[in-house]
Amino acid sequence: MIEPTDPEKKRSSRRRFLAGAAGLAVAGATGAARADEKNLPPNVAGWSKQLGEGVASHPYGAPSKFEKDVVRRDVQWLTASRESSVSFTPLHELDGIITPNGLCFERHHSGIAEIDPNDYRLMIHGLVDKPLTFTLEDLKRLPRVNRIYFLECAANSGMEWRGAQLNGCQYTHGMVHCVQYTGVPLKLLLEQAGLKPNATWLMAEGGDAAAMNRSIPMAKALDDCLVAYRMNGEMLRPEQGYPVRLVVPGWEGNVWVKWLRRIKLGDQPWYTREETAKYTDLLENGKARKFTFEMDAKSVITSPSPQAPLKRKGFTVISGLAWSGRGKIKRVDVSLDGGRNWRTARIDGPVFDRACVRFYAEFDWNGAELLLQSRAIDETGYVQPSKAELRKIRGVNSIYHNNGIQTWALRASGEVENVEVG
Amino acid sequence: MIEPTDPEKKRSSRRRFLAGAAGLAVAGATGAARADEKNLPPNVAGWSKQLGEGVASHPYGAPSKFEKDVVRRDVQWLTASRESSVSFTPLHELDGIITPNGLCFERHHSGIAEIDPNDYRLMIHGLVDKPLTFTLEDLKRLPRVNRIYFLECAANSGMEWRGAQLNGCQYTHGMVHCVQYTGVPLKLLLEQAGLKPNATWLMAEGGDAAAMNRSIPMAKALDDCLVAYRMNGEMLRPEQGYPVRLVVPGWEGNVWVKWLRRIKLGDQPWYTREETAKYTDLLENGKARKFTFEMDAKSVITSPSPQAPLKRKGFTVISGLAWSGRGKIKRVDVSLDGGRNWRTARIDGPVFDRACVRFYAEFDWNGAELLLQSRAIDETGYVQPSKAELRKIRGVNSIYHNNGIQTWALRASGEVENVEVG
Repeated sequence: MIEPTDPEKKRSSRRRFLAGAAGLAVAGATGAARADEKNLPPNVAGWSKQLGEGVASHPYGAPSKFEKDVVRRDVQWLTASRESSVSFTPLHELDGIITPNGLCFERHHSGIAEIDPNDYRLMIHGLVDKPLTFTLEDLKRLPRVNRIYFLECAANSGMEWRGAQLNGCQYTHGMVHCVQYTGVPLKLLLEQAGLKPNATWLMAEGGDAAAMNRSIPMAKALDDCLVAYRMNGEMLRPEQGYPVRLVVPGWEGNVWVKWLRRIKLGDQPWYTREETAKYTDLLENGKARKFTFEMDAKSVITSPSPQAPLKRKGFTVISGLAWSGRGKIKRVDVSLDGGRNWRTARIDGPVFDRACVRFYAEFDWNGAELLLQSRAIDETGYVQPSKAELRKIRGVNSIYHNNGIQTWALRASGEVENVEVG
Repeated sequence: MIEPTDPEKKRSSRRRFLAGAAGLAVAGATGAARADEKNLPPNVAGWSKQLGEGVASHPYGAPSKFEKDVVRRDVQWLTASRESSVSFTPLHELDGIITPNGLCFERHHSGIAEIDPNDYRLMIHGLVDKPLTFTLEDLKRLPRVNRIYFLECAANSGMEWRGAQLNGCQYTHGMVHCVQYTGVPLKLLLEQAGLKPNATWLMAEGGDAAAMNRSIPMAKALDDCLVAYRMNGEMLRPEQGYPVRLVVPGWEGNVWVKWLRRIKLGDQPWYTREETAKYTDLLENGKARKFTFEMDAKSVITSPSPQAPLKRKGFTVISGLAWSGRGKIKRVDVSLDGGRNWRTARIDGPVFDRACVRFYAEFDWNGAELLLQSRAIDETGYVQPSKAELRKIRGVNSIYHNNGIQTWALRASGEVENVEVG
């Protein structure tokens, strides 16, 4: 429960009660109308009087037609072609921590490779005792694990380095999703091939026309990487690397190689295009940070937000997501006044290592203009910085690893804007 | 790691190693082929040489065309019409614990009500101080929680009461799914309306043409029920009650009223059609158990299974699901010999209260015929019974609440059949 610092607010009388076990407080007007027992809901006139569609009308189901605007969206001017572009998760239309597969953001370098699972092969070679090739069936017969992880593109919020630009959390923060992966521990495959003593790095390569490839140090590969073929129970979606992708928990999305076709073991990084010309962070002094794999702790308020304005005054819920590439989220704070005062938000639902967590902050909006912010604190004690703090250290040349605190200005009309604060 | 009792098996030499942190063992031939570094995977010829589809080709994504057979299926002869029928979750094609929304089983009594969310109303009336009507927007402004729960139809496995009948876990056990719900605690809504002291039961009614309704005791309503509007992050699917359904954790699916339009408070159960003529358990002596809300602990091996045969000998993984309406699953056992010997399976992934858990048992198949079984043990100490034990107590008249141990016969060909054992 947030107590806004606005003195107007404090004077307003309010009714409260606790929702027992859930421990949730509701204050002020919640909007429910007084009903007369004879005054039944209007639906008696319509859908209650005729048979609906039967089962298996949609053997693979789809959302309601009334949800047709809940979709991934792209920004046409962002890249030269749609085959090398990005579509964004509609974070403002979601809740909880699981992203449905159909709404997980995409980022491609040569479009979606269409791979026949019967022809799929994964080769492991280089500094190994015995180079191996796995079919998809081979992988499916090996021991597997299930893990829920966030995946964030390093360029998420990249446009915001030079100031508030995109009006909606779908665009400012929508290059993140969180699903349950099923896959084989990479360590198990590498041990089957047998690592040479000097194998200290690996190169993972995709089967797309870009042959997207990245270098990964052996310590990470042997720690927690997965060769995954399922997301949220079913096979990976085509745009997420069907039939097989690399899962690299907590690290930037670019290294989670999709359509994984080859893992080569070596004794040094490959310095591929995607880890030199791209996915490095150019600092103010002209030097670039390289191999900035880990995603820093971050959060964003998904509602209210520019695409999810408030429709009226009264009791409502601030909702948002937080995540950290370094472990579990320990706490999320919310501010209504642009970061001068902070209150602890309520985290609800499971808190997994390197997964999104959902936070809420209930409050009674009296129509005053507010500056909404959230900041994440992870279990290492790291606190999500302000954009100003971040720019002081990193400058504004980079397009990657912007985890600065986002500010939404809530206007008296209920509309919300992406703004910068001191 | 399961050690089959077959002596043939014990003689076979095998290579083993532990996959480090994951602690997973791989024995025998895993099928991976020795690769030559120059012999690249065959995909170099195809998808690696042309641009794929760009982003937002599918603003709401869909599975790969190669997964077109992974769908819900119905059984045409089961009911008089498809508007009052069931479609089954393809459990044999899934892994982990989350069911993707498009594959969650359906059970309708008058088809899928198509409800315009702007016209949606939920009325709370009867023994309350102040009858209330909520719009969907009202509900979305209230405090909410996120919970992962299984939902099982009381009739799941119902055909098996009189012997092994349906050849595939999609049909024998596919009336279960497990998703993350987002919703308002029912207790919070009831407290807003104000319960009269004699309000001891409620009746929940759906907005479909069946006006499907069930009685629920107040203790449950105030404990953990949710008025949910989201599943796996997005709005409920039409066939799951869009825009609002009741979530009644651990209890039979029939009381999770879909298209929820009305909650009436009373001082006794309503004895509706669905809790008298249906959803009661007729015993051998002609008496019927009524209000058998809680779902007993249950499990099933989803692979190998009749729809997911083994394609060759060697190392493979037995995979399955377990759940209990009484709390967390504590342990799952697996037998290869029809229940004579049992080994503890490996539970992998999160274990939530009244959610599905995923279990695995790795083994090296030498081609011998096996009788595969699994049994779930929940945190109350309840052990899933054999079908024989269950029939001894309940007879074979019922079609509900069959949680007996399922047996799959693995043939030498790798095919799997639904069979009964002593």
